[in-house]
Amino acid sequence: MSYSPLLVRLIDALCCMPGVGRKSAQRIAFHLLERNRDGANLLATALAEAAAGIGHCQRCRMFSETELCSICSAGSRDRSLLCVVESPADVMAIEDATGYRGLYFVLMGHLSPLDGIGPEELGASALEKLLGENETKEMIIATNPTVEGDATSHFLAGLAAQRGIQASRIAHGVPLGGELEYVDGGTLSHAFFGRRAL
Amino acid sequence: MSYSPLLVRLIDALCCMPGVGRKSAQRIAFHLLERNRDGANLLATALAEAAAGIGHCQRCRMFSETELCSICSAGSRDRSLLCVVESPADVMAIEDATGYRGLYFVLMGHLSPLDGIGPEELGASALEKLLGENETKEMIIATNPTVEGDATSHFLAGLAAQRGIQASRIAHGVPLGGELEYVDGGTLSHAFFGRRAL
Repeated sequence: MSYSPLLVRLIDALCCMPGVGRKSAQRIAFHLLERNRDGANLLATALAEAAAGIGHCQRCRMFSETELCSICSAGSRDRSLLCVVESPADVMAIEDATGYRGLYFVLMGHLSPLDGIGPEELGASALEKLLGENETKEMIIATNPTVEGDATSHFLAGLAAQRGIQASRIAHGVPLGGELEYVDGGTLSHAFFGRRAL
Repeated sequence: MSYSPLLVRLIDALCCMPGVGRKSAQRIAFHLLERNRDGANLLATALAEAAAGIGHCQRCRMFSETELCSICSAGSRDRSLLCVVESPADVMAIEDATGYRGLYFVLMGHLSPLDGIGPEELGASALEKLLGENETKEMIIATNPTVEGDATSHFLAGLAAQRGIQASRIAHGVPLGGELEYVDGGTLSHAFFGRRAL
């Protein structure tokens, strides 16, 4: 015994989303069919249009419908600064939280040889081309403070050094509002050795 | 600063799913765009076709593309038994776990006056029509053991009594493999007072 064919197909298709298993897919399918068919139709259209229309910015690899994303095409940005991040969400987080007015480069991942993700998958050639334009003075590396992020950071610093570009990495330490007592050892050790003169 | 228009629309549309907030929607959108565009297209088609094609069985209110669902249209079912459940998932659970060969009626919810869900929203008239066909000998009430499920059960038992149909409710008690020590008081009390002679 199973659901009707269309419903089975909908539940299977919903499972392609990360974090959504069969039980969640079923719950989502029932919700949409029972209470929000308009939402389901809007979502269908949005998915199809996004899959067809969204590509990557030719320059920074950010998701974009146009050849250059809104940041790369803005005239008001400081082209001497380049911030390298792992994901598009990181661009948004930095834009929202900091007053950074430079450009970005989105790796869309981190070095992970076991998963077959090497420099080429992270757009190393596009990054080298960008650095070759000789506009960049400082590369701000904002990869995640994980083992893979550290390895990626090391690789990026090498690229910058080859071209005599200054490389820096965002600071890691105790988060604001955090209490020393409850911060993990690795973070505290980072914060301790990364102490700054007052 | 925000994402490109199509991406914003996709993230907004993904938020219509229950249990999916902005962060999850963003993660899902990135995953689909970066790693699974085919999945996104399949999902778009499945959603559109399901929203357009799936209705309710005329008899039992189960989701169905056809006028009668596969259970109601099967000739091999025992038409003297009617099991009333809250949701389509309950039908599947009972089909999978028990050898029940009767028919179902799906309320698509439970009585909840504060949310404006009364007998009519639960398809009471369709249920009365079904009971009026004089095929049903026993109504098995399988609503959830919650306050709303209990109220709904009470209402259903009344409907059955009006027509001289025997009503029963599935047993509530200690689940298999459960330990008395860790079972909540309400369940244990139910199990105690619902004890059966051996």
